[in-house]
Amino acid sequence: MKNKGTLYLIPTPIGDTALEQTIPVQTIEVVRKLDYFIVENLRTARRFISKTGTSKEIDEIEFIVHDKHFDSRETGALLHPLLEGKDAGLLSEAGTPCIADPGGAVVAQAHEWGIKVVPLSGPNAIILALMASGFNGQAFRFHGYLPIPENEAVQSLKSLEQQSFNTGETQIFIETPFRNNAMIERIIKHCKADTLLCVAAAISTSNEKIITLPVVAWQTKQFNFHKVPAVFLIWSANKNVFQKKRKKYKR
Amino acid sequence: MKNKGTLYLIPTPIGDTALEQTIPVQTIEVVRKLDYFIVENLRTARRFISKTGTSKEIDEIEFIVHDKHFDSRETGALLHPLLEGKDAGLLSEAGTPCIADPGGAVVAQAHEWGIKVVPLSGPNAIILALMASGFNGQAFRFHGYLPIPENEAVQSLKSLEQQSFNTGETQIFIETPFRNNAMIERIIKHCKADTLLCVAAAISTSNEKIITLPVVAWQTKQFNFHKVPAVFLIWSANKNVFQKKRKKYKR
Repeated sequence: MKNKGTLYLIPTPIGDTALEQTIPVQTIEVVRKLDYFIVENLRTARRFISKTGTSKEIDEIEFIVHDKHFDSRETGALLHPLLEGKDAGLLSEAGTPCIADPGGAVVAQAHEWGIKVVPLSGPNAIILALMASGFNGQAFRFHGYLPIPENEAVQSLKSLEQQSFNTGETQIFIETPFRNNAMIERIIKHCKADTLLCVAAAISTSNEKIITLPVVAWQTKQFNFHKVPAVFLIWSANKNVFQKKRKKYKR
Repeated sequence: MKNKGTLYLIPTPIGDTALEQTIPVQTIEVVRKLDYFIVENLRTARRFISKTGTSKEIDEIEFIVHDKHFDSRETGALLHPLLEGKDAGLLSEAGTPCIADPGGAVVAQAHEWGIKVVPLSGPNAIILALMASGFNGQAFRFHGYLPIPENEAVQSLKSLEQQSFNTGETQIFIETPFRNNAMIERIIKHCKADTLLCVAAAISTSNEKIITLPVVAWQTKQFNFHKVPAVFLIWSANKNVFQKKRKKYKR
């Protein structure tokens, strides 16, 4: 029986930055040796791989697109080459694969078939935003997108704020970039004055902007995050709960 | 008025691995220029900084320890040099600062004083584990440690499992490494047969081991994670809920 290949989970830069800014040398070296890639977006994947100075001819390299439109019944077929011993790289459109993108289904199938999965280090907007927010990094919750209809979005926001107050957790979500400003206005309108809001935009790029302020201060602040990829973080900790929780972490 | 310094949030390797494995070149270059560090652990911080080939004399470099025993009334004092224009690096014992460590309090104070905060990329065990688990990366929750008393730990586990079933969220937690095996046995005993458990141990080191299996398969598996740093992930998604949720993410 042949040895199976390895599935490498490969982070790519967020935005148009130089590789060495956020991608470790070893991650780049793994990419240079691979000739089979499962990618969320073909254009950005090709550009990334060419920047690594791949040791392969570009027409020797096989790319298969696995995005949100992919038919989940075909997931197994992507991994057949690994059963034959070939290694593969899984790439997200930007940042770390399998976080806030559809890559997880490929990894789940790999585990079912006993294929080794190796996650490589690189930039992750959610973790970078959480680090930089100053909020609780010992308990947090990522929600993806909030609902679109206004009444549901407001209800969801208020519920996150209340959860944060009750548990001390940082609540994290994202928004389609052209709706960023509307989201901030909604938070200003519906959240409590002393609730903290961090907006972390264009993370790990030269335009990075990270602002943490209480809602009352956002009310008088000029801001414009239109069409800039951003992560939203809300923290409304009841100080007593948080102090008590912190003790729990002291082991 | 002087320009304020910048607070860099600097990831360090997890375990005793070469820097280039998980730390991007630019992160290393930022460290080489700094001579003021706020660190969780003095010994690992010194070793890391010396590995970067710092451009400073080692006795020019100032280290201040900020760990879980630090008196929070003194947090401001750590940042006085930044008000005077000096840059600083904030380092965790291992991995990314401010996630599952006490660094967040320093960052919160920096925001209050209008000090620029720049998070740098590097390895984060929680995100690497989540990527490699094959579980839902579009909604997840990190709990830190579960309670120690057996009855509370079991109650907490069952509640996480139920939450995952209801919401499709991946539930993530950590355990003191000498209690890892006991935690896995507890999960085997109290969680449902088809609930998925991923144990991601020694992440990003040469001893990395990532195993995703349903609880029923863990029951007959040989395992030993004693004293190896590990992340635990539980996913018990109701398939219908998850499919519905996935549609929400398709924007």
